[in-house]
Amino acid sequence: MIVDKLFDAVAARGPVCVGLDTSLDYLPPQFRAQFGDEGEALFQFNRRIVDATMSASACFKVQIAFYEALGLQGLRAYARTMQYIRAKGCIAIADIKRGDIASTAQMYAKAHFEGEFEADYVTLSPYMGMDSIEPWLPWVQNHEKGLFVLIRTSNPGAVDIQYLEQKSGARVYTEVARRVAELGAPYVGSHGYSSVGGVVGCTHVEEAQALRQQLASVFFLVPGYGAQGGTAADVALYLKDGNGGIVNSSRGILLAWKKQQDGAARFDEAAGVETERMRDNIRAAVEALKT
Amino acid sequence: MIVDKLFDAVAARGPVCVGLDTSLDYLPPQFRAQFGDEGEALFQFNRRIVDATMSASACFKVQIAFYEALGLQGLRAYARTMQYIRAKGCIAIADIKRGDIASTAQMYAKAHFEGEFEADYVTLSPYMGMDSIEPWLPWVQNHEKGLFVLIRTSNPGAVDIQYLEQKSGARVYTEVARRVAELGAPYVGSHGYSSVGGVVGCTHVEEAQALRQQLASVFFLVPGYGAQGGTAADVALYLKDGNGGIVNSSRGILLAWKKQQDGAARFDEAAGVETERMRDNIRAAVEALKT
Repeated sequence: MIVDKLFDAVAARGPVCVGLDTSLDYLPPQFRAQFGDEGEALFQFNRRIVDATMSASACFKVQIAFYEALGLQGLRAYARTMQYIRAKGCIAIADIKRGDIASTAQMYAKAHFEGEFEADYVTLSPYMGMDSIEPWLPWVQNHEKGLFVLIRTSNPGAVDIQYLEQKSGARVYTEVARRVAELGAPYVGSHGYSSVGGVVGCTHVEEAQALRQQLASVFFLVPGYGAQGGTAADVALYLKDGNGGIVNSSRGILLAWKKQQDGAARFDEAAGVETERMRDNIRAAVEALKT
Repeated sequence: MIVDKLFDAVAARGPVCVGLDTSLDYLPPQFRAQFGDEGEALFQFNRRIVDATMSASACFKVQIAFYEALGLQGLRAYARTMQYIRAKGCIAIADIKRGDIASTAQMYAKAHFEGEFEADYVTLSPYMGMDSIEPWLPWVQNHEKGLFVLIRTSNPGAVDIQYLEQKSGARVYTEVARRVAELGAPYVGSHGYSSVGGVVGCTHVEEAQALRQQLASVFFLVPGYGAQGGTAADVALYLKDGNGGIVNSSRGILLAWKKQQDGAARFDEAAGVETERMRDNIRAAVEALKT
């Protein structure tokens, strides 16, 4: 079960998920100038970031949109990044938020769980219903793959659909949460978590506590830290004893070099230090919760 | 406004949208064998289908998953297919069902409304809320682009989320419908339809009538015809006087050659005949509704 590997990674190296939402603008100009090809520049930047942060992070999440925006050369950089992460023995999450009907979902699964784009986890969007998630389950069952289904996102507009109140008084996202937990029940690993996880954005205390309690076996992917406003104390609420979830940060890590004098030359070192700082802050917040 | 171009295409050539959900299995083996590269085979098949069906169809919808499944060479075939459709003066819909937060949505818009993957329309998924749709609007405003937002899909699992009943008694998809119409209001073209359209699967009579009435200015993309069970009489209900919507068929057209003796050699001709037949059936059903 991939979720056990992820759990062990969090236990060993902390819950930080390094978000490789790498925009060309994030590269130090001197570094960028070394490469003629934009895709090559992106990949070489990512490679240095992976090397510098892997000892203080649980996994890497690669946002495919940033690569797709550069066309085929960008997608080649995406493929090389996924391959590099996995060759290092690290866990690669493809942030693709796909959601489509059966035959199409199977094609997407083939695209992202096999071949040159192969990832360990993908993110999925549930609007089309559970039969858009189910076609991915054979890969969870047979190929050590995992899913993170959008449950509650942290963008302001999340309320538009996810917060609609049903007759029962429950909101749409709690129904999605219930179904994700149900779908994942057959894939619970040895630490009590399922390889079918959920994306649960960092919002407010009551919601965090309710979701963590309701979804005991759902491993969380928590966006919203740092640039998006979440603090270590906020995200600690989504973890159980410091595990059971990963906390994504992208700009905070990739752009750490901008906050340092002469940071451009050592952008990877700055990213490594920032990753350690974030990990330590979250660990301290987890400890503080215990008292 | 792209929607005016689409309206004119439907008026001139009927409401069929040819779905290029091209699986390698769909290619006649003799044809497939002519090409070493899988991507090349896909593109050459699509090229022949476009040539043979463009006189009886309004537009083409290309399902990116089928190309992504073949990795970079598949995506090269996808890019070439989009470029070919648009070079022929036809309208290309990128069926990508993206839905992500602001900065990511902008990257996706750049990917699919500029550069080598450039489409005229994209499909979007609304689960993350309207701020995942809004970043696409500047392209609608300034670059003659259009959107089809998922409202009500025709897969069985669609009920899981889209059918959840709110306190008001309305279902989730009607709230999405309302918001899509609202978002599209500033982009209504000269025929009364907006360039912000909706995906409305072919389901049952009452729903079709209610949606068509509620969403007078929303142009519909209607999947579910043929292989998925919808008849010409069913889909006619989603149109207004034969326009205001396009009806997608993929397998019915791409695999028409299998129903004919010696069809393999003339797969494109078979697709053309099937497209005409579908168009005529829908037009007849539209006429029948008037009486």
